[in-house]
Amino acid sequence: MKVVALAGGVGGAKLAAGLQSALLPGDLSVVVNTADDFDLWGLRVCPDLDTVMYTLAGVVNKETGWGVADESFTALNMISAYGEDAWFKLGDRDLATHILRTERLRKDVSLTETTAGLAGALGVQSSILPMCDEPVSTIIKTPEGVLEFQEYFVRRGQRDKVLSVKLRGIEGARVPSEVQEAISHAEAVVFCPSNPIVSIGPVLAVPGMGELLANFSAPKVAVSPIVGGRALKGPADKMLRSLNHEVSATGVARMYEGVVDGFVIDRFDEEEEAGISALGMHVFATDAVMHDEADRERLAREVLLFCSGLGA
Amino acid sequence: MKVVALAGGVGGAKLAAGLQSALLPGDLSVVVNTADDFDLWGLRVCPDLDTVMYTLAGVVNKETGWGVADESFTALNMISAYGEDAWFKLGDRDLATHILRTERLRKDVSLTETTAGLAGALGVQSSILPMCDEPVSTIIKTPEGVLEFQEYFVRRGQRDKVLSVKLRGIEGARVPSEVQEAISHAEAVVFCPSNPIVSIGPVLAVPGMGELLANFSAPKVAVSPIVGGRALKGPADKMLRSLNHEVSATGVARMYEGVVDGFVIDRFDEEEEAGISALGMHVFATDAVMHDEADRERLAREVLLFCSGLGA
Repeated sequence: MKVVALAGGVGGAKLAAGLQSALLPGDLSVVVNTADDFDLWGLRVCPDLDTVMYTLAGVVNKETGWGVADESFTALNMISAYGEDAWFKLGDRDLATHILRTERLRKDVSLTETTAGLAGALGVQSSILPMCDEPVSTIIKTPEGVLEFQEYFVRRGQRDKVLSVKLRGIEGARVPSEVQEAISHAEAVVFCPSNPIVSIGPVLAVPGMGELLANFSAPKVAVSPIVGGRALKGPADKMLRSLNHEVSATGVARMYEGVVDGFVIDRFDEEEEAGISALGMHVFATDAVMHDEADRERLAREVLLFCSGLGA
Repeated sequence: MKVVALAGGVGGAKLAAGLQSALLPGDLSVVVNTADDFDLWGLRVCPDLDTVMYTLAGVVNKETGWGVADESFTALNMISAYGEDAWFKLGDRDLATHILRTERLRKDVSLTETTAGLAGALGVQSSILPMCDEPVSTIIKTPEGVLEFQEYFVRRGQRDKVLSVKLRGIEGARVPSEVQEAISHAEAVVFCPSNPIVSIGPVLAVPGMGELLANFSAPKVAVSPIVGGRALKGPADKMLRSLNHEVSATGVARMYEGVVDGFVIDRFDEEEEAGISALGMHVFATDAVMHDEADRERLAREVLLFCSGLGA
């Protein structure tokens, strides 16, 4: 069963890893948000791509969910010694990724091809596909001023109220042919439990992506990143509240109204089932919180079964 | 006493460190070869500048004479894991230098200013001055083909016969105003015991450098990098032989004929004194091999005294 997953960082990467375990090698393509990519000390850093890559390669730091396991920070300490503010924790292994990516991008290799080369070298058999090859930046407007996403997310620890979210450069982005191809062959599209505003949002905002998904006949299913009114990971809950969305599975489902055919919620939120159904979606309730690798694969298999049921 | 030293890598850095110890803080300027600089994985690597900087900062690896002490190679191992040929041993701490330098150069900060910033952050009080701000590359012609310097020196371990040495880009280079200024205020210029062909040679070949030194009235003294017919470090002896120079202190002195006023040799080569004097140079023989920090400072003090004598 060929499947396309749409994903942001940690939460999305976990379900993607579950899908990779549940499917035959090569049958999974993950379309990843790149709107939180940024330049740091001249290096192109792609946090979501790397989280997905390290997770699918089995080298991710399991405690944090991002970065490489057994990481050291020797270069970063030296960067600090040179007087730089080392607010973004780039590990030594991780640096290798950014160095090689930056070199290849400067040689006009596309981000898609660069990512395929790096992921392939790490033994990843799934396709990790950037949502676009053009640079896009998530810009967060806060009472303290306008921040790039990683400044808001990492440097300032998500402490600012979010007044608005803009995607700088999105109008110049195009759906890469590799993403078009993957969707055209897919038997299901899974929206991973990632932040609907700053992870899945940018993916859907790439010009042409909406039409591509609207014309896609096989099932599209989203997994809620909100359980019991809280984000499983990251600032999705605070961000939804700030932007006057309901902080619930239903609030997320409303954002996907008309886009997905099915919605997966946690059993904890079962009472929301009727309301979400009323949005025109099939609803499946299960244990949607992934504590370990067994959870990921079990949830992935359930999601795939749910998709198969919708496609029948 | 304000002194300008001309230096390449390890040998030059050692005498520069001795001079730094012997002089008042801020009185030493080291003009460093940059013709073996190169790009590796998109990073600008300046081996001689870094060897001088790490040595003067007291953070150099004392066993190798280059690189940073207590270095690790975690990023390099990951670069290898990505399938790259890790022939040049970039340590994690060292990488910080290349990353920040590359970033600043790309922002159009000159190499001179970039080097001053990095060296200053490491607490170096001497001025470390690139011989020029324009990129110059030492190209070595060998029977196996044309090689960039680090390919010849590191990747192929100096095993090739050197047929000729060219400095690509030297015609577009200019003596930076900082170097002009340092020389104009100097009371002596010391040619460190560095390779006369690929370390001091490129410095002297920067258009305008020859005139600047010729018009410089204070003493100019060179320290022989050849003792007993062998290079103290690196491939100078093999290179001199390949290029039909005599492999001796005298052979090096001939290359500096008309350029320096004094020449420092090791006592081991005392029999060459008359021949070198006949080239029109004052000769001073001492223990010119620097085994430890005490040697460096002692040699530096002797060289400075020799200069003072010539200036009197």
